[in-house]
Amino acid sequence: MHIRPARTSDHDAIWRILQPVIRAGETYALDRNLTRAAALAYWFAPGNSVFVVQDGTDAVIGTYYLRANQQGGGRHVANCGYMVAPEAGGQGVARAMCGDSLGRAKARGFRAMQFNFVVSTNARAVGLWQACGFAIVGRIPLAFDHPSLGLVDALVMHRSI
Amino acid sequence: MHIRPARTSDHDAIWRILQPVIRAGETYALDRNLTRAAALAYWFAPGNSVFVVQDGTDAVIGTYYLRANQQGGGRHVANCGYMVAPEAGGQGVARAMCGDSLGRAKARGFRAMQFNFVVSTNARAVGLWQACGFAIVGRIPLAFDHPSLGLVDALVMHRSI
Repeated sequence: MHIRPARTSDHDAIWRILQPVIRAGETYALDRNLTRAAALAYWFAPGNSVFVVQDGTDAVIGTYYLRANQQGGGRHVANCGYMVAPEAGGQGVARAMCGDSLGRAKARGFRAMQFNFVVSTNARAVGLWQACGFAIVGRIPLAFDHPSLGLVDALVMHRSI
Repeated sequence: MHIRPARTSDHDAIWRILQPVIRAGETYALDRNLTRAAALAYWFAPGNSVFVVQDGTDAVIGTYYLRANQQGGGRHVANCGYMVAPEAGGQGVARAMCGDSLGRAKARGFRAMQFNFVVSTNARAVGLWQACGFAIVGRIPLAFDHPSLGLVDALVMHRSI
């Protein structure tokens, strides 16, 4: 696996990863009908640094963004979002991205990383972030309307770096 | 006190309220040097509904925004930010705005309201939100760099509506 900054030529590959996650609507608080343009605008929002993961054949199998979670007095805390290609699940891609993002965040001077909205039923993500050193520091009751489970809690997760 | 939607002609009055709060840097995670244009762009961000409070002389003494805190599966939870003019502190303006915002949020179909980043040392705000029915559902350690107190916690607060 190789992780590098995203280029404009990665947009097709990134959309191929974002699309099924957004359409499923189970893990990100995004409109399930978001267009390609709107999804890419969200992923590449001003202030976001976007990275991609390539496998041994140079195929893009994951992507993440890194940004400051707040401005002003909150700008020392980073925030990231990660997505893995459907065919690349279970290979440690998310874990590799999280480790990479923590390293880059530290190098950029961030003191901590925060996830604002981890859907509590996304057990795989919650467990992985905990394995990566994140603690659950908040639980927002019924904050996410899951397409099949209905209203479920969202978690705020945090770790120092 | 009278609360109504903001108009373009209120921009000067709103900036007069925002400016000292932003310059103080003690309660909002915003760049303390934010320009008037950037501050108004933040307050009137796409998706925000902005309101102002007028006193008996029609002077604008407070302002707040109401928006969805998340999109997609999180769009049933509202978010607000409130600011009170320096000379109007201690008159119940913030409490009136909070009550007004909860009513408007309910009328628009929101099921809950969430504050993402209440600076823990802002005891007046924390106490007021609790009096308005909000619970502390998260505490983000050292998430805010206070100009005089250094790194202090930020709180996530929530109530159903």
